[in-house]
Amino acid sequence: MDNTKYLRKVIIDKVLGDEIVEVEDVTIEEARLNVYLNGNKAISMMCIPLDQEAHALGFLMSENIISSLDDVEEIILSEDGLRVDIKAAVDEDSLENLYKEKTLVSGCGGGVTGNISGSVEVPFNQTSFVIRPEIISKEVKKFYDQSELYTLTGCVHKAMIYLEDGTTITSEDIGRHNAIDKVVGKCKLQGLDTTKSVLFVSGRLSSEMVVKAVMHRVPIIVSRTAPTFLGVQTAHNHGLTLIGFARGKKMNIYTHQGRINEK
Amino acid sequence: MDNTKYLRKVIIDKVLGDEIVEVEDVTIEEARLNVYLNGNKAISMMCIPLDQEAHALGFLMSENIISSLDDVEEIILSEDGLRVDIKAAVDEDSLENLYKEKTLVSGCGGGVTGNISGSVEVPFNQTSFVIRPEIISKEVKKFYDQSELYTLTGCVHKAMIYLEDGTTITSEDIGRHNAIDKVVGKCKLQGLDTTKSVLFVSGRLSSEMVVKAVMHRVPIIVSRTAPTFLGVQTAHNHGLTLIGFARGKKMNIYTHQGRINEK
Repeated sequence: MDNTKYLRKVIIDKVLGDEIVEVEDVTIEEARLNVYLNGNKAISMMCIPLDQEAHALGFLMSENIISSLDDVEEIILSEDGLRVDIKAAVDEDSLENLYKEKTLVSGCGGGVTGNISGSVEVPFNQTSFVIRPEIISKEVKKFYDQSELYTLTGCVHKAMIYLEDGTTITSEDIGRHNAIDKVVGKCKLQGLDTTKSVLFVSGRLSSEMVVKAVMHRVPIIVSRTAPTFLGVQTAHNHGLTLIGFARGKKMNIYTHQGRINEK
Repeated sequence: MDNTKYLRKVIIDKVLGDEIVEVEDVTIEEARLNVYLNGNKAISMMCIPLDQEAHALGFLMSENIISSLDDVEEIILSEDGLRVDIKAAVDEDSLENLYKEKTLVSGCGGGVTGNISGSVEVPFNQTSFVIRPEIISKEVKKFYDQSELYTLTGCVHKAMIYLEDGTTITSEDIGRHNAIDKVVGKCKLQGLDTTKSVLFVSGRLSSEMVVKAVMHRVPIIVSRTAPTFLGVQTAHNHGLTLIGFARGKKMNIYTHQGRINEK
């Protein structure tokens, strides 16, 4: 199987201590897969568009909507790979229950992606806020040194807002989206300005994580791990500086490098 | 702040190579927080019940449902800490859009938790399938050695079903839930029996990951990282053997130890 077709090239600025070099890097594809059940849209999922039929069937079986392959008449994948049509006998109660409960589980961003790609107009972030790479490196270190619940359980994500005056606000949760919502909520409750700040997160930067930063006009988002290609695109389109793989004195700047200033 | 109140003790069997010892371990609390907006239920979130007011406000602002703290009249947290009531001026379009889009983002399990805790009756898993700990250790190693997209991008989760005859089926995705749905879907499409199998996953075992194993009658779930307390409880209640921190020849068995047999 050729998995490389799900990789997308990006040009990044790689910070290596005092040096910054432009290099080619690779990110993973992230796309919206639409699942139709007996002609009606059942759900969309942000995912790697790979094994789509198995994904749609497995999800519907996990939800008890389809109970056996014997109940499936046909599964058809569209030519562009972004739509699966399933004809099957379904459990109507479970199908209805899928949204009635309105429960977001850990790591879940719900309708976020819908909101930014749909009805909400989000202006391009033009803030002139800049920061030196050493400060980011120093804050990443503190971010991980001071994670109490993670140290104890190995089961939490963390988010931190670094404000212009050097103070920081932090939150922890089982879900990486929850951690962001909590830390932004704390700032708002205290009347703090997030338009000149850096958001540090412990999780990967998939599109909906990036969208949260965009929605709150945070100009810079930093993670010690990887972004998806859609995450990079979203940051690019909305004026967000996206930094991944921030470890020690190294980091990868994927978008809007101007805010990371050595002076 | 006393974060230790969010920790829950569990008694586990710790496998250390050839030796198994019973020890006390600690897991993180995971609970359902209900958010009410102007008297109506807006959403539930599986999370650590900590900073609940900030969490609810931050989420609703991330979704563009509330645009400023000035629009908020009051935020009240219930005595048990599991319900937040917000009175606020809201953007009705964004509120409606929250569920209309029906998009699950990476790492999102949607209505799963609703389904198992609600209308669906899932029998206790009584399968007599047993496996030796050495086989689990060997398969965990293979599981990580053979993760191509992860190696290339650092941005994917993986799931693998190990069948009774020693064959394995794998899937990768940006979302840990998606990876499980895909691998189970592959098994179902091939008519393979998952009632005598082990599900290996790269992510943490929060409740909705455990629920997926339960729904598909998989008897054993293994991760190299941590479960939540609710994950452990769910496994306990449904007859699932839950193994966390499977690394090298070590692993922690949290529930239904009988299936891990040294003979």
